[in-house]
Parts: sequence; C-alpha cells; structure tokens
Amino acid sequence: MTYCVGILVNDGLVMVADTRTNAGIDNISTFRKLHLFERRGEFVAALATAGNLAVTQSVLSHLTEGIEDPVTGQRERLIEQTSMFSAAQLVGRAVRRVYATDGQSIEQHAAAFDVSILLGGQMKGREPRLFMVYRAGNFIEATTDSPFLQIGEHKYGKPILDRAVTSKTELYDALKLGLISMDSTIRSNLGVGMPIDIALIRRDAMTFEMSKRIEVDDIYFHDLRERWSTALRNAHLAIPRPPYGQC
Amino acid sequence: MTYCVGILVNDGLVMVADTRTNAGIDNISTFRKLHLFERRGEFVAALATAGNLAVTQSVLSHLTEGIEDPVTGQRERLIEQTSMFSAAQLVGRAVRRVYATDGQSIEQHAAAFDVSILLGGQMKGREPRLFMVYRAGNFIEATTDSPFLQIGEHKYGKPILDRAVTSKTELYDALKLGLISMDSTIRSNLGVGMPIDIALIRRDAMTFEMSKRIEVDDIYFHDLRERWSTALRNAHLAIPRPPYGQC
Repeated sequence: MTYCVGILVNDGLVMVADTRTNAGIDNISTFRKLHLFERRGEFVAALATAGNLAVTQSVLSHLTEGIEDPVTGQRERLIEQTSMFSAAQLVGRAVRRVYATDGQSIEQHAAAFDVSILLGGQMKGREPRLFMVYRAGNFIEATTDSPFLQIGEHKYGKPILDRAVTSKTELYDALKLGLISMDSTIRSNLGVGMPIDIALIRRDAMTFEMSKRIEVDDIYFHDLRERWSTALRNAHLAIPRPPYGQC
Repeated sequence: MTYCVGILVNDGLVMVADTRTNAGIDNISTFRKLHLFERRGEFVAALATAGNLAVTQSVLSHLTEGIEDPVTGQRERLIEQTSMFSAAQLVGRAVRRVYATDGQSIEQHAAAFDVSILLGGQMKGREPRLFMVYRAGNFIEATTDSPFLQIGEHKYGKPILDRAVTSKTELYDALKLGLISMDSTIRSNLGVGMPIDIALIRRDAMTFEMSKRIEVDDIYFHDLRERWSTALRNAHLAIPRPPYGQC
C-alpha cells in the first residue's frame, strides 16, 4: 500500500509520500515514491507514485530516459518539458507505454495493472499545477475548489484535509496538515509507513524550497503525533455526553 | 453505501447506523439498517446491516419469520435463540440461505452478493457480545483488545475509534465517539447519510436503555459536529509549523 498527497495552495505546492511497499504482508520494504525533477530556474516538479512497484519504476525510467516519439524518433524526457500540461501528458504516455509492454502479462498472472501518479510543479512564468494521472494515462488537475489530490490509501487521511485545507492555506500549514493526514493513515494501515518524504515548492521560486526525508526518530514529527493525539482526546472529552434517554 | 459501528465496552453495547441507501448516485433512499430484537428480561439484541438491500432485507425476513431446520422441520427465529453465539450462527445461516436462493442470479447479472452484518446483544446471565457476520455466513467477535466492529464505509470513521475507544470507555462516551465517527464518514462519503439510528444496551439491564433516531435537525448532534470541527481546527492550528528548511 501507499499514501501520497499533493496540496496546491496560493503560496505553492506541498508533496508528501510514505515509503512502504509490500508484496504481501510478509514482504515489506522501503522504496522512495517521491521523485524530484529540476531544471534550475526553469522547471521544478515532484512526482509521487502508487501501485505496482514494477509498473511505477518502469514509468519512472521512461520519464528519465525518455520516450521515443514514433514519428520524429526523438526521445522526450520529463525534465525537458516546457509546460506542466505537457509534462502530465508525458507521464500519461509513459503509463500507456508500460501498459503496452507489460499489461497483458501482468493480467495473465491475475495481478492488476495498478498505478496512479501525482505530478506537481511549476514552469517558469506559468502557474504551479498539480495533476493526478490514472492507470489509463488520462489525468485530472487540482483546482482552488479541490486543492489537494491523494493516491493510494486515501480515506483515513482525508477528513482532516476536507476540513482544513483551502487554497489560502499557508505553505507550511499545508505541509503540517499533510503530515497530520499521513499520521492518521500510518496509524490505521500497516501498509503505509515511515520514513516520509516531503517536498515544498514555493510559487515562482523555481527551485525546491525544501526536500527532506522524515525518519522514524524525527523530533518534530513525533511531537506533531503526540500533540494531535492529545488534542483529539481533549476534543472528544470536551464534547458533552449525548442527552438521549438518560434519566 | 452504509456505515454502521458497534462498540462493546464493559458497561454494555452501543450500535450506530446510518440510513442512506443508493442504487447509483441518482437513486438515493432512506432505509432503516438498525433492527432491534427483545425478549424482555431474557434476550436483547441489535442487528445492523450493510450491502445489497435485497439481500439484507431477505436475511432479516428469514430471521424474523424463522429458518426451517431441514431435519426437524422446526422454524428457528432470532428472537427465540438461547445464546448470542447461536444467534450469530443463525444470522450466518440466514445469509447462506439467501445466497443459496439468490446468489447465482445476482452474480449472473454482474452484481455482487454483498452483505455484512453486526449483531450485538446479551442473553440473560451471560456476557454481552458483539459479532460481525460476513457474506460467507462465518463471523468474528469483538474482544477487549478490539472492542469495536464496523461494516460498510469504515475507513473515514476509524481513526477516532482507534485512538479513543477501549473496553473501559463509559457507555455514553462510546455513543459519543460512535457519533463523531459517523460524522467524519458522512462528511467524506455522500453514500452515508442522516438520519442516524442508535441503540444502547446496558450490561445486565436486559432491555434497551435507549433506542432513537437522530434526525437532521437534532440539536445535540448539530452541536457535536460544530464542536468537533472547531476542536480539530484549533488542534492543528495549535501545532507548531514544521521547522524543516525554513530560514
């Protein structure tokens, strides 16, 4: 399992991804799912993947090594794209390329061709954008109405985002909410686990403001988990008991 | 969709169920999913259902009208059971009976034979017990380690239960937590909706302490939703911003 969330606010973009993979509950590993692309001063993007690891790694290889254009013979690489839209299209083509190569064999073995990808970033002089690419290679985009997108195990961590995230949320508050959302998911699904990779892209900075791996012993994240637990406990204790049917 | 939760604490048992059913997003109705059985002073139980409505209603009819024993020819009704275990077994037999009758036809039309049931209650002189019956008619039971069971759309409302519910939770606190869990689910899944049916069985009382439908305009539930939202907002605002990478 996996949990990744991208949050697009006026100030920029936050990406948060766990690192746990499993091939059955008895085969658990750590793999990076958050990948950074930067053409300094020109293009900055983060890509988060969920699904079959063989598929997502192949997609990533296509994006870094380039997909050959059948007409011109030229190789198209993610890093060379000139708009976020064309970057999302290229991710979709990479997914379709892997499906064309491996899809039938995967399905012959009763496995699912399972992949979903978040792509967030900014091209110089343009707006920051956040996309979610489906297994069919098509995609949707975050908007001011729906400023976050999730892939993988999205349900446990969605309520706090639904309640708290708007496009006006400050960038580091968005990161904090992404981490609370990740904490709820980690607590409820063993298939999602530490360490956590995060990346921040501030609007128009055209470089990563920050990218970091949060390890199990991270003091801030440990404190966030404790504070959130305590606050939730206090919150429900402070609500009066139901008055129904009591004498 | 549906969300139902049963919580078994030392003081007794709480059952909470929504009432929304849908056959597609364009066909939404209200049906009771929480059903009460009482043999005053002897046996008290609440049954909550999720899944295909035709299946769950058939199961319920079998439980109230009785399932004929193929050997003795006698009809066995839920209300006449003499232990919670035999009651859970009877629910399982009812599910299997419906599968035997309707399963093949349902599957021929590419629909799923989809049903899960919570059964909680107490037989006089015995312990209160809470079971979850699967579509195969087999079942599991809540324990002091895992004092709550959920059916239907369980993920949105699970984090608060994971954090707050233990077998020592007071009965009305358990109800309050069940309602918070229901609130989170209703907010995130349109397929789960008001009104909400609730039932409380206090240990050894051998009758329902309370059963009630919480309507959309219920003052306490409205207040609970407001307080919970405010508390969550204050909780994340009170957590310091991540220190990573800031100047």
